[in-house]
Amino acid sequence: MSTKKSAAQAGQSLWSAMPKANSELFALTYGSLVTELVRDYEDPIEVNAQLDRIGHSIGVRCVDEFLSKADVAGMSLATQCQNLRDTAEVVAKMGFKMFLGIQAEVGGFSQDQRSFSIYLQDNPLATFVELPGDEQSGGDDLRRLKYSNLYCGVIRGALEQVNLKVECNIVRDTLKGRRSE
Amino acid sequence: MSTKKSAAQAGQSLWSAMPKANSELFALTYGSLVTELVRDYEDPIEVNAQLDRIGHSIGVRCVDEFLSKADVAGMSLATQCQNLRDTAEVVAKMGFKMFLGIQAEVGGFSQDQRSFSIYLQDNPLATFVELPGDEQSGGDDLRRLKYSNLYCGVIRGALEQVNLKVECNIVRDTLKGRRSE
Repeated sequence: MSTKKSAAQAGQSLWSAMPKANSELFALTYGSLVTELVRDYEDPIEVNAQLDRIGHSIGVRCVDEFLSKADVAGMSLATQCQNLRDTAEVVAKMGFKMFLGIQAEVGGFSQDQRSFSIYLQDNPLATFVELPGDEQSGGDDLRRLKYSNLYCGVIRGALEQVNLKVECNIVRDTLKGRRSE
Repeated sequence: MSTKKSAAQAGQSLWSAMPKANSELFALTYGSLVTELVRDYEDPIEVNAQLDRIGHSIGVRCVDEFLSKADVAGMSLATQCQNLRDTAEVVAKMGFKMFLGIQAEVGGFSQDQRSFSIYLQDNPLATFVELPGDEQSGGDDLRRLKYSNLYCGVIRGALEQVNLKVECNIVRDTLKGRRSE
């Protein structure tokens, strides 16, 4: 990937070519999925694992779409992703853009260049969402819920398909009253 | 509603103002929800009921969004919906357009004007979906699944909020090898 700008431009052109749905309806549907899982599994740690599992199968599917659309648009990712920095840029600037219409930022590379963070300014999954506070009934349990854990599974599943085995976690989440995710 | 064209135009302008997500990601997320419900409830009749219930709460939420956006755009629905024919047009041409970017057609009014059909040429919920055939293992059960039953709940919930009590069912579905839904 030559410059940050080119990944962002590529993301924009992929996004404009995709069929779209209302993102609020998407958020409400995702909310229904999380609600069902919370109802079924009760333990939020298990719900997080299920969201990751579901995300993984979505990611496996999405990456095919992503690679074929990127290929059609003349962006050969095989030559563009030479190292993890390139991959991070493509995930954040092209992947998030193509599927959610948002652009994510990359930062926090570790010294050994083997880990990094992705920052979302907007989180379309969490529109309308408020998690119950500590003081509310049931709130204690849901503090451990990673509401948007689907993202982790999607990234893990998508990268696995291109032979990159990664671990992915949500470190911060504005739903829990912190600045960004 | 004066003409069909005006509902369609209003729908188009509402749609263009909405925040959007990739409709394939939406379809995959909805598919995950249906899969969870099938896993939990097993009986497809119960899954249909759950999809209707979830749709109902989404519809209750969506109609607020719809009315406020329509109001902002200067389309006063209170004066436009004088009878069920008007309502049908608004649901099909504005509602489906605003939330899914597709336009639906209205037809099949009963003689007493108390029932009608909505036809979708595309069904964004069912992208990538294939239901197992009769001959496949487990196929027997899923024949009774109404995969897109969320729509019925959404319509029922949304209209309930404007004091219209309706029944809504999926009559035909291309997923089951018939022409349209």
